[in-house]
Amino acid sequence: MKITILTMFPQLFDGFLQSPVVQRAIRRESLELEIVDIKEFAPGSFRHIDDSPFGGGAGMVMRCQPVLDALRYVKGEEGGAPASFTVALSPAGTVFCQKTARRYKELDHLILICGHYEGMDERIYRHADEELSIGDYILTGGEIAAMAVADAVIRLLPGALRDKSTEEESFENGLLEYPQYTQPAVFEGEAVPEVLLSGNHEKIRKWRLKESLRRTLERRPDLLAGRILTEEEEEFLRELGTAGETKELLRDLKSGK
Amino acid sequence: MKITILTMFPQLFDGFLQSPVVQRAIRRESLELEIVDIKEFAPGSFRHIDDSPFGGGAGMVMRCQPVLDALRYVKGEEGGAPASFTVALSPAGTVFCQKTARRYKELDHLILICGHYEGMDERIYRHADEELSIGDYILTGGEIAAMAVADAVIRLLPGALRDKSTEEESFENGLLEYPQYTQPAVFEGEAVPEVLLSGNHEKIRKWRLKESLRRTLERRPDLLAGRILTEEEEEFLRELGTAGETKELLRDLKSGK
Repeated sequence: MKITILTMFPQLFDGFLQSPVVQRAIRRESLELEIVDIKEFAPGSFRHIDDSPFGGGAGMVMRCQPVLDALRYVKGEEGGAPASFTVALSPAGTVFCQKTARRYKELDHLILICGHYEGMDERIYRHADEELSIGDYILTGGEIAAMAVADAVIRLLPGALRDKSTEEESFENGLLEYPQYTQPAVFEGEAVPEVLLSGNHEKIRKWRLKESLRRTLERRPDLLAGRILTEEEEEFLRELGTAGETKELLRDLKSGK
Repeated sequence: MKITILTMFPQLFDGFLQSPVVQRAIRRESLELEIVDIKEFAPGSFRHIDDSPFGGGAGMVMRCQPVLDALRYVKGEEGGAPASFTVALSPAGTVFCQKTARRYKELDHLILICGHYEGMDERIYRHADEELSIGDYILTGGEIAAMAVADAVIRLLPGALRDKSTEEESFENGLLEYPQYTQPAVFEGEAVPEVLLSGNHEKIRKWRLKESLRRTLERRPDLLAGRILTEEEEEFLRELGTAGETKELLRDLKSGK
């Protein structure tokens, strides 16, 4: 797939371009990554790229012309190539999640527009297929957001990861991932849970599922809300649920079934 | 404030260190930013930094020793200085939001640990004060997450932004930001809403509040759920609410008051 990033600060991507997962995906020809400088499309040596907001207020708002000319240039390059999908990063967008990453990885050409988080002219967004936020916090610009989206998508491409299956991770099965441990078995007096050293695969699987459920229940009960539980999951949750609040959640879960 | 980032890939921060907001905060002496390479704390030329997980499974898990030695080194530097607060980035953490950014900006020393998102030894997390996720998606590592957190915090520091007040932005008042427009008043046939050219400040304020509410209602009704509405907001929401679903939401909002 091809990913194009439109930005006023191409140098912010210097590190990202060198990251192992990006490099590997490019070498394996799963990925073509293009960084386009919006400033190149602003007229004159002054590079007039933003201006004060109509109606007053602090901050500068990015102008339509440089951004939309850059977008047209990038789309024009396609010629007869498959259609692109344009995403504008913005704190007011819908919230990015793993499901969206899986959707984007099927695209032929993903275009990410990074604007000032303090404001892009609203008429720019009308040229985007989607307005996307990476979370409920304000960044200086869309650049770090674009890196997050690109990284989440790129690591799903064939050959981008060395060995790891991406199936067992947090969110992929709707739960937070279970705790991981590696050598040594005892570090500064803290031991790895015995079951992980037992070699009993079924016991290990059960322990991990239970720990995933425990963690999700404690930290992110919202992730359990719409879940259809297996019998095993329901049993584990019942074992874990002793506090009043947990009982209430379990009741809600059951009644939702 | 001081921010220290522990990472195996310091070069990923090359661009971030050059970003205007970071540079400005450093020049104004609001910020000291330190990137520490965890690999420096791994023994031998082999830099043994990760290993297979106990109990089997794909992927590599980061070992306790290099990470915790790096953390101790960073904390040891403090001497009699104010205490630090350590945050480990992880997809299984609590979710970062603007409120957390505001909390962190009051710290004297914030330490961010970037691990493989595919796994850090659980015993490392016990040395962190908080386990934090930037959203429900999987990144290759904590580096981009650390940039997002650092950027959101740094731009709140005195002198980091040139002119913008950070009070009117999305989430700061619990709503998504209203649409912004700048020159020209008509671009490719698309005109700026007339009210913004009226010069009538009260009308503009009302239009912006209504658009903020409309957008939040359409895209992020979850943000309205716990909100205590002003009379004006309630009136605007009533005007906006014609669809059945909106009516239902409004009923919930009212009964929650």
